[in-house]
Amino acid sequence: MEKSAIYHQPFSSYAYGYDSETLHIKIRSKRGDVKEVTLIAADPYLHTKAGWSSKETSLRKVATTEEHDYWFVAIKPEQRRLQYGFVLVDTSGVDIFYGGRGFYENTSENRAIMDYYFKFPFLHESEVFKAPEWVKKTIWYQIFPERFGNGNPDLSPENALPWGSKDPGRDDFFGGDIEGIIQHLDYLVELGINGIYLTPVFEASTNHKYDTLNYFEIDPHFGDKETFRKLVKEAHNRGIKIMLDAVFNHIGDKSPEWQDVLENGSESRFVDWFHIHSFPVTPGENGNIEGENTLSFDTFAYTMHMPKLNTTNPDVQKYLLDIATYWVREFDIDGWRLDVANEVDHAFWKEFNKAVRTEKEDIYILGEIWHDSWAWLLGDEFDSVMNYPFTQTIIENFVEERIKPTKMVSGINEQLMRYQEQVNHVMFNMLDSHDTARLLTRCEGDKERAKLALAFMFAHTGSPCIYYGTEIGMDGADDPLCRKCMEWDEAKQDKEMLAFMKKLIAFRKVNQEILTYGNLEWHVVDDINRIVTFSRTLGVKRLIFLFNQSEVVQRIEKSDLGIQTELRNVWTDETVTDIQVAAKSFTILES
Amino acid sequence: MEKSAIYHQPFSSYAYGYDSETLHIKIRSKRGDVKEVTLIAADPYLHTKAGWSSKETSLRKVATTEEHDYWFVAIKPEQRRLQYGFVLVDTSGVDIFYGGRGFYENTSENRAIMDYYFKFPFLHESEVFKAPEWVKKTIWYQIFPERFGNGNPDLSPENALPWGSKDPGRDDFFGGDIEGIIQHLDYLVELGINGIYLTPVFEASTNHKYDTLNYFEIDPHFGDKETFRKLVKEAHNRGIKIMLDAVFNHIGDKSPEWQDVLENGSESRFVDWFHIHSFPVTPGENGNIEGENTLSFDTFAYTMHMPKLNTTNPDVQKYLLDIATYWVREFDIDGWRLDVANEVDHAFWKEFNKAVRTEKEDIYILGEIWHDSWAWLLGDEFDSVMNYPFTQTIIENFVEERIKPTKMVSGINEQLMRYQEQVNHVMFNMLDSHDTARLLTRCEGDKERAKLALAFMFAHTGSPCIYYGTEIGMDGADDPLCRKCMEWDEAKQDKEMLAFMKKLIAFRKVNQEILTYGNLEWHVVDDINRIVTFSRTLGVKRLIFLFNQSEVVQRIEKSDLGIQTELRNVWTDETVTDIQVAAKSFTILES
Repeated sequence: MEKSAIYHQPFSSYAYGYDSETLHIKIRSKRGDVKEVTLIAADPYLHTKAGWSSKETSLRKVATTEEHDYWFVAIKPEQRRLQYGFVLVDTSGVDIFYGGRGFYENTSENRAIMDYYFKFPFLHESEVFKAPEWVKKTIWYQIFPERFGNGNPDLSPENALPWGSKDPGRDDFFGGDIEGIIQHLDYLVELGINGIYLTPVFEASTNHKYDTLNYFEIDPHFGDKETFRKLVKEAHNRGIKIMLDAVFNHIGDKSPEWQDVLENGSESRFVDWFHIHSFPVTPGENGNIEGENTLSFDTFAYTMHMPKLNTTNPDVQKYLLDIATYWVREFDIDGWRLDVANEVDHAFWKEFNKAVRTEKEDIYILGEIWHDSWAWLLGDEFDSVMNYPFTQTIIENFVEERIKPTKMVSGINEQLMRYQEQVNHVMFNMLDSHDTARLLTRCEGDKERAKLALAFMFAHTGSPCIYYGTEIGMDGADDPLCRKCMEWDEAKQDKEMLAFMKKLIAFRKVNQEILTYGNLEWHVVDDINRIVTFSRTLGVKRLIFLFNQSEVVQRIEKSDLGIQTELRNVWTDETVTDIQVAAKSFTILES
Repeated sequence: MEKSAIYHQPFSSYAYGYDSETLHIKIRSKRGDVKEVTLIAADPYLHTKAGWSSKETSLRKVATTEEHDYWFVAIKPEQRRLQYGFVLVDTSGVDIFYGGRGFYENTSENRAIMDYYFKFPFLHESEVFKAPEWVKKTIWYQIFPERFGNGNPDLSPENALPWGSKDPGRDDFFGGDIEGIIQHLDYLVELGINGIYLTPVFEASTNHKYDTLNYFEIDPHFGDKETFRKLVKEAHNRGIKIMLDAVFNHIGDKSPEWQDVLENGSESRFVDWFHIHSFPVTPGENGNIEGENTLSFDTFAYTMHMPKLNTTNPDVQKYLLDIATYWVREFDIDGWRLDVANEVDHAFWKEFNKAVRTEKEDIYILGEIWHDSWAWLLGDEFDSVMNYPFTQTIIENFVEERIKPTKMVSGINEQLMRYQEQVNHVMFNMLDSHDTARLLTRCEGDKERAKLALAFMFAHTGSPCIYYGTEIGMDGADDPLCRKCMEWDEAKQDKEMLAFMKKLIAFRKVNQEILTYGNLEWHVVDDINRIVTFSRTLGVKRLIFLFNQSEVVQRIEKSDLGIQTELRNVWTDETVTDIQVAAKSFTILES
């Protein structure tokens, strides 16, 4: 047995409370090395004259990655306390005991030493990760307000260009506003989405508004508070949730707070609001040159336009938490997306969670984190993060075609194993955003590839998000080109793509439960023929997804999918005799 | 390369802030498999036209366990942000890139993909684990007050037995009290210890006082508040810290709160103070039989005498935090040892930490946790835990002789790798306590074995603790026999053991810095001759420890220790020509 590959850690995604009475226990072993894993477990205090009253339960292999197999069991400890160890048997029949003190021969003597076990001391309901239920039912739509719709031209900046008149430059304005969103709400209802994520709407000088000037005001070019209130109401009336973008890592350099520091230097009353290493902080002096790593104060990246806030300062905390609760309380927003969330301290986010959750119990807190985020997803900070490691793997296979299907499957399994199961249920999955090139562009204009990637993402657990315009075939390279004006001229919209997206969204809604909770099992994953097939199973219901990336039609045998029953193609609504998937296409069967 | 064995995880003991500007990065590989590890790292935003400006730094192999090698590097990221990956080279020269998305071929193309790296987004000083400095200089002495000294016989319980007249039974009283501790403070000064850990002193009915009746009163058989205040003052005058034992997981069944529940059932105003599953909770009814797993309310273990407190209830929180701050504020105690700390929720301990630290900045918070405790040692809960996994490994080799030296060394290395380095510096190391059989008894009366174990423990990082009486050769099997009355009759004390302990304590004090911070390196570890040698190095100073468990004298060559310089035996204060270690003995050299 390759003992060096075995890993388990209590109080991590390897052992956590799933609900108030259930523990999830996972262990990993080298791929293909172990044939059987048994949990030896009981309450640590449950001793009789015969010794500790442990019970044995088998673990199930739930995922395989390039290097590892993952084994899983759910267990309900009567007193919510658990002492446990593992007995692993390798493919040649050799067994070993593994516990909190390492590996020991699997003898009854060793198994009688209580010290050798792992402990889950107490399952506290308060420590169980729980996200709002509605998120699982939500299909998000991301809007970059300056580019979605110009509903009130009177508000447009003086230098605003005619809508869609050119590809956007970095500093262009086109006059998009909140009224423009309201006017198109019925379009979104028809599309089928039921959650809108808006990039920042607060007063700021740029078109993206990430350099906040005043967090308590709607940017005057976007509208005013009444218009925003109307947006929330109109959206709610249509069953659509509204999520705002909170930029709390840094503030804009034009904000009164930073301007005060620029003016008064070390005498400013806002000195402790920032991380200043030396004065002056004046641009051009003391190493303060835009983009250089010699800045004398902390910033977002290396831009002096975004001085980093000191979120350990109680005054800053109060200021930011007042903002966070204000927009929930006064405008009834449903979620906060937190910009550059990974660079802000955990203690602040715990306070943030308490504050906004007190205001609205089922608020959704989404962190912008591009990497493994387990440390923020323990229940007392975020409900979810932008799931780039998951979607990036999809893109590398379906879009960029630079990895093989098996590598993608390994990456997806790895990612699913990183988080608690209930965290995966509410992950924010997206294939493009204002921070990336658009999906179609990454597909080199190949719509079929884009559709495969979208359908694949929709088939997995988590809440999918569509970046505005993707549904009508908009393209665009990296920022600023991914921020083109929304195309409202129906003649210029890709109607076929729109119909496809509507169908996909409708499918996700009808099948929400199985797509959220359904057990994932991979079937044929074939790098040569470029086929990926998997099923999602919940109770007696089973959906089978078949993706064909190759240029030819592919036939798959029922037996390869482990199916004997009759099949129905639920994507085309036809009975299936022969399983065929057209070139560069997918299909969905129900058994 | 055995890729399945490789493990790294940001925001764990594999990547953490050591101080406000230093990150510690660790990675593990299969033992003996990898010959070189390089960190590729830089600020994530540091890009020039040539690409990302990463730098390469070598990792050092710092520990080897039965299964793994651990590699380490300390790094100071200029902007306190770090993006990093590893290049590993195995013993056959094969290399691979490893990052946040797994393994990739070590090509410049792959290394240019920013997505493939790990991130440490920002090193927040507020998130760096920092324990009080004085703890590193402390040698603890644990007192079980009912059995240390009877200073005021007037306070003794009516049924108190004459001091030391018999081996203690479970319910015996002998009249030990706080005055008895005060009277023996000078004895402790002479012994050399400078911290006292007292098991509970609050009003409670048992001799051990873990079934608290009133947390705001000193048990009347132990004394009163004035006597306790005098103890703290007299101890402080002698440079001795005082740590109390807080039993916050549960309360005694004779407490007014539980009595109220017994009396008023579901109508009691204290119902939400506990975890009650069904009424009645009356003993004898509704499955409530002492020791059975059918109790209708949560308890410590299965004892109805200790109903578990609901620490998520704000009233309970306020009640317990008031107690915690009261004894700090009013009596100036220096530490809290937290009983059954692992079964109380983390959120409560975070509040506890804030509350007591606000009262006294350098208070020491010690959790009673017998297993891997990383989740409580992240800086916002405990400073330390009772380090049983470490000392248990020592006991298994030196005391019980059921594992070999190499297994012990593996276990110690494993344990050191589990926590952040600065956590290890303040771990609470002890070989016996009121909860275990006494050291000498576990050594079957063999004093030489006990001395080896004690000297070995003192040679490692962390604060050692002596259980009262160990220094005069007291013995005793499991509770209640490990709680005998302290032997004050000098004729009955083991004077040779006492002299040994004084010498060991004095040695620890003189060498505190190197014993806290000194780099640990193992030299000859020989299972056949039962020799363990290692060095601790700090700057130019180096101490070499040689332990011989065998029945014969052992000779060790200088070259086996990698030493060319002159040596001095600092334990016997002699110059060394030939390195010899007597049978069942140890020695300490300085090079």
